[in-house]
Amino acid sequence: MQAQPISFLGFLTFIPTKRYAFMKDTFYAYIQNLQNKITSELQKIDGKAQFREDNWVRPEGGGGRSRVIEKGSIFEKGGVNISAVHGELPASMQAYFGVDDADFFACGLSLVLHPSNPMVPTVHANWRYFEMYNKKGEIVDQWFGGGQDLTPYYLFDEDAIHFHSICKRACDQHDATFYSTFKKKCDDYFWNTHRNEARGVGGLFFDYCKATDDMSMRDWYNFVADVGDCFLEAYIPIVQKRKNLVYSQEQRNWQEIRRGRYVEFNLVHDKGTLFGLRTNGRIESILMSLPPHVQWVYDHHPEKGSLEEKLVKVLEQPKEWI
Amino acid sequence: MQAQPISFLGFLTFIPTKRYAFMKDTFYAYIQNLQNKITSELQKIDGKAQFREDNWVRPEGGGGRSRVIEKGSIFEKGGVNISAVHGELPASMQAYFGVDDADFFACGLSLVLHPSNPMVPTVHANWRYFEMYNKKGEIVDQWFGGGQDLTPYYLFDEDAIHFHSICKRACDQHDATFYSTFKKKCDDYFWNTHRNEARGVGGLFFDYCKATDDMSMRDWYNFVADVGDCFLEAYIPIVQKRKNLVYSQEQRNWQEIRRGRYVEFNLVHDKGTLFGLRTNGRIESILMSLPPHVQWVYDHHPEKGSLEEKLVKVLEQPKEWI
Repeated sequence: MQAQPISFLGFLTFIPTKRYAFMKDTFYAYIQNLQNKITSELQKIDGKAQFREDNWVRPEGGGGRSRVIEKGSIFEKGGVNISAVHGELPASMQAYFGVDDADFFACGLSLVLHPSNPMVPTVHANWRYFEMYNKKGEIVDQWFGGGQDLTPYYLFDEDAIHFHSICKRACDQHDATFYSTFKKKCDDYFWNTHRNEARGVGGLFFDYCKATDDMSMRDWYNFVADVGDCFLEAYIPIVQKRKNLVYSQEQRNWQEIRRGRYVEFNLVHDKGTLFGLRTNGRIESILMSLPPHVQWVYDHHPEKGSLEEKLVKVLEQPKEWI
Repeated sequence: MQAQPISFLGFLTFIPTKRYAFMKDTFYAYIQNLQNKITSELQKIDGKAQFREDNWVRPEGGGGRSRVIEKGSIFEKGGVNISAVHGELPASMQAYFGVDDADFFACGLSLVLHPSNPMVPTVHANWRYFEMYNKKGEIVDQWFGGGQDLTPYYLFDEDAIHFHSICKRACDQHDATFYSTFKKKCDDYFWNTHRNEARGVGGLFFDYCKATDDMSMRDWYNFVADVGDCFLEAYIPIVQKRKNLVYSQEQRNWQEIRRGRYVEFNLVHDKGTLFGLRTNGRIESILMSLPPHVQWVYDHHPEKGSLEEKLVKVLEQPKEWI
């Protein structure tokens, strides 16, 4: 789906290439719809658990709508959250962005799904938009960011290939270099430096997507919307294929140990989580990404030649899937 | 036990008040002995599991001796580790200490014990010594740090009082103000800012203990050694009292949920963990502090009037136990 230029005022079809004042409203409307689409589809597939909705207000400005599913037939825990927060940029974030005394607006959709069956991979996605203002309220910077990535516990090559193919198709509609660039950025970003391994088999990651001569903010919006729109197609066929596979307690233990690495990445390295903690976001919405049951076993290593070892080897050396 | 002035050269009983060149050897010998004492006592009490020892070498200089116990009758997981690392201060740590181009030496004992029975509290302790050198190899700074703190899942006031009493007795031998000062520092340090609650019921925390007119490095050594020596007396009677209490699956779930907060503190806030990750310490030794089985349940709140709620209320508002 290519998003249409906004025309709600009839004559307002002119699209400025640089500072685009309605972008935040356009994108926020988009992620509200996308949240509805994704949660209703996931709920249908799960068939047992329902998403619980929590609306929350951020004291300093803005808020969000969290939807969390727990103890489903497929999804042991998952969240599909949107938020739109604004106000003064907190001191800790000023240093991070190298600005002082700025105001900001940020909105996005974040989702993480932790299936109970270790044969079904965990998935994460986030699509976000950011605006920075001077004290006169003028937009001084605006950009998109986001991506989606897959974290299997047992590796089926065809699942990784499928996920990446759908990501690539969405990218290719906009720029022939996007897939390879953003695939590499994903491998770099989701790298658990202290473990020297990837969190999963990657996907896409992009950030600071700003207007250039080639890509207007509107072009970036269209790109991000296409990536968001392909999420279900990238993930759901994998769920359908793996959800009924039988598994042992040992395989479940392995999943819980690997989930520990997921926690380590999110709490030690993930900028989205740290941004949430620093901007006083709603803590339960930020940490909904953490898996339901997790294990840490001292100095655990998979057996030589095992399926578990096969996964780890791929994580140690990110692979070209296409 | 008051540690004796070193006299291994017979005549060398003079104790300088400022830069004390043998301190690192004295303290490293102390923590080696203390590790032996603590692990042999814990193993005796557990009666089922043995500590596994791993000696490791840090490529940039130094190494450590990790001892980890798992699946014991009392201790589901625990580690009592010592390390002594040295070399160039990593760039990320230079900024932290506000120096450039310095060398360092750091040694310490770190322990965390996670009992399986939720009626037995988790305990953590760490006693450490740090030296900083200029490029001529001269000591330009040296200090002690450390402490011990208790994290119950069900609160028995008398256990917290006992633990704090032993801590206070060790402090009082050295300075009448130490207990109240270091007790408060502990409450401040182990504060999970993003949750607005304490990690546990506290104990002692001290850092940057440097030579002053009142306290020589030798005096600080004696203080830290007294605190280390009282650890078993502070913790073991609590274990003995609670280890055979019966508990339900719901109480075990609560313990695992609270362990999630422990993980959050260690990975988001704990300076020791971050120091280990930044100085390329042995990852399994650093993260042995993470509990064996952990849960994250979305937006979990204990029932009104329950024992679980009683604990949370105390954690929200640190208490004077003595």
